[in-house]
Amino acid sequence: MTQNPDLNIALIGCGTVGTGVAKILQSSRESLRQRSGRSMQLRRVVVKNVAKQRDVDFGGIPVSNDIRTVTDDPDIHLAIYVVGGISWAREDVTRLLQSGKDVITANKALLYAHGAELFALAGTMNRTICFEAAVAGGIPIISAVNTALTANRILSIEAILNGTSNFILTRMLDRREPYDAVLAEAQARGYAEADPAMDVDGTDAAQKLSILTQLAYGTRVPLEDIVRQGIQQIELLDLLVAAELGYRVKLLATSRLAKERLEVSVQPTLVRADRAIGMTSGADNIVSIEGDAAGLLRFSGAGAGQMPTASAVMADVIDYATGRAAITFQSILRLQGQKPIPLQPQEELSRRYYLRFTVADQPHVLADIADILGRNEISISSVRQDETADIEDESGVARLVIMTHRTTEGRLRNADREIAELSSIRGDRIRMPIAD
Amino acid sequence: MTQNPDLNIALIGCGTVGTGVAKILQSSRESLRQRSGRSMQLRRVVVKNVAKQRDVDFGGIPVSNDIRTVTDDPDIHLAIYVVGGISWAREDVTRLLQSGKDVITANKALLYAHGAELFALAGTMNRTICFEAAVAGGIPIISAVNTALTANRILSIEAILNGTSNFILTRMLDRREPYDAVLAEAQARGYAEADPAMDVDGTDAAQKLSILTQLAYGTRVPLEDIVRQGIQQIELLDLLVAAELGYRVKLLATSRLAKERLEVSVQPTLVRADRAIGMTSGADNIVSIEGDAAGLLRFSGAGAGQMPTASAVMADVIDYATGRAAITFQSILRLQGQKPIPLQPQEELSRRYYLRFTVADQPHVLADIADILGRNEISISSVRQDETADIEDESGVARLVIMTHRTTEGRLRNADREIAELSSIRGDRIRMPIAD
Repeated sequence: MTQNPDLNIALIGCGTVGTGVAKILQSSRESLRQRSGRSMQLRRVVVKNVAKQRDVDFGGIPVSNDIRTVTDDPDIHLAIYVVGGISWAREDVTRLLQSGKDVITANKALLYAHGAELFALAGTMNRTICFEAAVAGGIPIISAVNTALTANRILSIEAILNGTSNFILTRMLDRREPYDAVLAEAQARGYAEADPAMDVDGTDAAQKLSILTQLAYGTRVPLEDIVRQGIQQIELLDLLVAAELGYRVKLLATSRLAKERLEVSVQPTLVRADRAIGMTSGADNIVSIEGDAAGLLRFSGAGAGQMPTASAVMADVIDYATGRAAITFQSILRLQGQKPIPLQPQEELSRRYYLRFTVADQPHVLADIADILGRNEISISSVRQDETADIEDESGVARLVIMTHRTTEGRLRNADREIAELSSIRGDRIRMPIAD
Repeated sequence: MTQNPDLNIALIGCGTVGTGVAKILQSSRESLRQRSGRSMQLRRVVVKNVAKQRDVDFGGIPVSNDIRTVTDDPDIHLAIYVVGGISWAREDVTRLLQSGKDVITANKALLYAHGAELFALAGTMNRTICFEAAVAGGIPIISAVNTALTANRILSIEAILNGTSNFILTRMLDRREPYDAVLAEAQARGYAEADPAMDVDGTDAAQKLSILTQLAYGTRVPLEDIVRQGIQQIELLDLLVAAELGYRVKLLATSRLAKERLEVSVQPTLVRADRAIGMTSGADNIVSIEGDAAGLLRFSGAGAGQMPTASAVMADVIDYATGRAAITFQSILRLQGQKPIPLQPQEELSRRYYLRFTVADQPHVLADIADILGRNEISISSVRQDETADIEDESGVARLVIMTHRTTEGRLRNADREIAELSSIRGDRIRMPIAD
């Protein structure tokens, strides 16, 4: 197949990532040509606000706020779609594919919500969608799952996929600061969104995990089937107790094959401090994948940020320019037809757990909780209720931490409903699995 | 391009890795077809000893000891060449390419020694060579450098590329055992070759680093231009002193851009114990690679072993079957013509160093050594000469450990020549850079 030596590109969206992509396209022209064998030409830019001052000079390239300038231009081959949101994005990408453009996107929310539909449309239109930047920023994990690990049966994926929540958990422990203070600082520094809800409640990580799970197992897992908890209720106390026991608390995203069923969860989890995942600090991401042949592989690095994400987008651009991306996308489409692996019901996930209750500092509290756990066949491995200032605040309440032996999510949910009714219970009840 | 739905494969070599490849080809037929869109047929096997009992059943497939059964068979598309050594391998692969076969190989010594020649021949014959398994076993680092990081300027590569030596260094410290005992155990368990010279003297790691450096920087670095030291003279004492200071000793392979020059070294190095490289234990490999856009990415996992290496070979097979590998190889060929980056002269590498001397336990030894270091403009940051049993043996010699401030390899070599002449010096003199 003879390729057009020029590759004409439209950039749609020029926020943080789009600006990074434009910078690389402009500064690395010669090395991109050498790597791909083609000359990359940024021909059009579409942004919401044309008048806005930007950190990059487009020279004479037409900048518009109308995506039709791209869909109507037969000379454009490839659209780099780096806009967030779902409903408009769905419409935009649909129109791009329908007008014959190939699409590279970093929008994981879009792929999570409408990936199947957009992939099918791309298949029908004989177009390609690339999305390395949608999961784990600059870490080439989509490529690893789609190419390097293809001869493997994937046994498990364990990952930190949300940099904001990992930054918050790391900083709380390092600085001995409460959740709210660290979140406010992260927002002030621009690490966390003005509305960080999707980062801290596990939605963002769950969307990314769903995309990875689909590629690795051929199974579509909707958010409602993922055991999902956020980090909003985690207190400094929880991190300190975990640290004393040799653990770090991480918002761990897990997909695991267990007896031909798939267990999928995004939960704050106690991970051993001396394991690679436990050591992953700040805004970094890590993906630990176990294949039946390759064994355990770990990939880590910056999970977000302008240039790391732009690096992943540009890897897609080169992959596209050379023709590799179209081949990989055909493989992905073939796998869409795979027989899905049944999901393990949420109640049957079996782990050890860390439980923390805020209780009135009065007699018989522990006995009441232990009784409920016992009746639900949950076996206690250790208990601590310290009298130190760290553990107890001034208002007559104490924190009670219970570690359990292996038990199921279902038993714990039942027990939790009963415990919530106890008159001695105050405020949040924390439940975190322990990864061994 | 319409592809033949059947992909006819010859397996050349059926040792550890070849057996693993044959197992995957036989056991994963359907998933390989789904992943690649083609039906993979193992059609011929070539081994040294046809009569030998093997761990895999080839059924009716012809097994020969003559590679001409492959080169003469026009139906074979692809040869998986998993035989070690250099001179025969060069001849074999040359004949395979000349007879129109594409080649997948795990033989890093061959690629290091004759890669340029074989790549050129493959280019002339319009054939493809794949070699993911040649570096870091199951870790997809060749793919990462060739595809995921292509939009980056690579700033540095730091890696543990030899599992045997990492196993030895880890086990010595964990078990408080001397080098010889651990090496013997590694050999008994089959981790180390009967002749482990290339593993422990840094040759194997240097060959792999040279291959990675060529891909990342377009610069061919022969072994003689790599600052190279093995681990044979490392004593348990060195590991213990390093550990007390917060370091682990790792056989670190490094390529680094510094002021438009390339610094390339394979040396036992003090690496902070809490960094990912310092934490890499046992036979695992890790590659930490810094790109100007992607930032610091880390890839780790099993660097050797039957199934991890076979997994990498099979990733190449699928890449080849889909047509991606041919495209990637064209990119590699384009980069062969790149202008090489000049090498930093070995003498000018600048680091902090750990020095250890075995000295006669007598007056003025430290003064003599300090004087020589001072005259060579090497500034000392700390000294220890302990009286403990760990540090001193029974024979009237003591170990003296000196940590230096930043200085050059050249100054240290000069000082070392003078120190070697001192009458108080006994046995080995150890020099290890400190990675910060």
